[in-house]
Amino acid sequence: MIQKFAEADKFADFIGVKLIEAGAGYAKAKLEINNNHLNSMGTVHGGVLFSLADFVFATACNSYGTIAVAINASISYFNAISNGIITATAKEISKHPKLSTYLIEIRNEANELIAMFQGMSYRKKEQHNF
Amino acid sequence: MIQKFAEADKFADFIGVKLIEAGAGYAKAKLEINNNHLNSMGTVHGGVLFSLADFVFATACNSYGTIAVAINASISYFNAISNGIITATAKEISKHPKLSTYLIEIRNEANELIAMFQGMSYRKKEQHNF
Amino acid sequence: MIQKFAEADKFADFIGVKLIEAGAGYAKAKLEINNNHLNSMGTVHGGVLFSLADFVFATACNSYGTIAVAINASISYFNAISNGIITATAKEISKHPKLSTYLIEIRNEANELIAMFQGMSYRKKEQHNF
Amino acid sequence: MIQKFAEADKFADFIGVKLIEAGAGYAKAKLEINNNHLNSMGTVHGGVLFSLADFVFATACNSYGTIAVAINASISYFNAISNGIITATAKEISKHPKLSTYLIEIRNEANELIAMFQGMSYRKKEQHNF
Repeated sequence: MIQKFAEADKFADFIGVKLIEAGAGYAKAKLEINNNHLNSMGTVHGGVLFSLADFVFATACNSYGTIAVAINASISYFNAISNGIITATAKEISKHPKLSTYLIEIRNEANELIAMFQGMSYRKKEQHNF
Repeated sequence: MIQKFAEADKFADFIGVKLIEAGAGYAKAKLEINNNHLNSMGTVHGGVLFSLADFVFATACNSYGTIAVAINASISYFNAISNGIITATAKEISKHPKLSTYLIEIRNEANELIAMFQGMSYRKKEQHNF
Repeated sequence: MIQKFAEADKFADFIGVKLIEAGAGYAKAKLEINNNHLNSMGTVHGGVLFSLADFVFATACNSYGTIAVAINASISYFNAISNGIITATAKEISKHPKLSTYLIEIRNEANELIAMFQGMSYRKKEQHNF
Repeated sequence: MIQKFAEADKFADFIGVKLIEAGAGYAKAKLEINNNHLNSMGTVHGGVLFSLADFVFATACNSYGTIAVAINASISYFNAISNGIITATAKEISKHPKLSTYLIEIRNEANELIAMFQGMSYRKKEQHNF
């Protein structure tokens, strides 16, 4: 189910994000940097890092079968990067019936921390159709 | 200068963001939603809203001639949207030699608030080449 | 009702916060700085600024008669301050049946922006007893 | 040095925060909940949780001898609490010459996660006098 949910994400697909694995409250994905991902300074755009992290956040919080939507998120940037493959991993910090919180780390190929993302989701009653 | 800086943003261009206007500590941009911008639930991806806001944030904080980089940002989502044109406007909240803060509103065509973004930037000593 | 709710806040009272006014989705309060409010650098503690903002946030989001609890909040600091009276004003940015968002400005006596706080609340079904 | 820095925090002392231990980029503190710490709903005030976390954040980022000031912070609340002893632990996530980021967990006596705090600091050139 969760793989189908992740595959249906058109924007993630458009920018090149690939799901590596997903389970209950957990997801991991990667992105190979190309020229389309760069900002005016020639480094990876904050929106790219955010989108990669947001994808594993959405995948993790939708892994339980009911629809969960993001209500807010924050990101801190630690190191600029211009090429290579980056990986994002979502960890569930807190899970309640309605609200859940996830912490996502983005790392480069040398396993250095590039950015950290935190997101909170709100769970609806509806089940997924996937 | 600032228009050239904004035009050099490859990711913003890749996803379809268009600069409307920019000045000292200020920027406004728009995005026409298409299928590439949607998430697994058929609404506009959080990463798209963030990227649009991040673009006006970067444009506003780089409008003074010296390089400024984002250090962290947060976004809150208020209403889901699936089509139409969305507009983001950056306002300067605080400006110091090193650190500045911007508040960005994203609104739909009916002028409803879709999301609010807040970003902090760090100013370097280097001048832009644009 | 909302005045009684605000008066029942023991921590706000303990640190010296005074409600100025409150209405539907709105609240304003002040704090006169004294030595107990200072940090190790002799400026007003981040926790004091946060607590003052949190008080007007809680008052504003509980102004509709049903219980609302904070789920997350962020604060950005713009200017350090060591004495005088500071004022916090809460403005409602978005209101839904369950989730609402408030933006709070903290200003000094010269009306300079000292800090900005953003908070999201979750509304329960229970009514207040106040 | 860092113990003296922590002891000079008048607001932390005023509300009852006690330093447990501190080292390079690290600090741990506790607070025994009493009636002064409660909000209008009879649970621990968000400002108390924030202040406890902010204290270990400030202690950790000032542990290197030069003055570091908080520039922004966020907190997410996971479980309400009304009594007992709570403990906050600061972990350094990223450290650069100017900017550093810390993640702080607040736990109750049963080691349950009550809240999570994230803070970013800006390092000045001045040395501490402590």
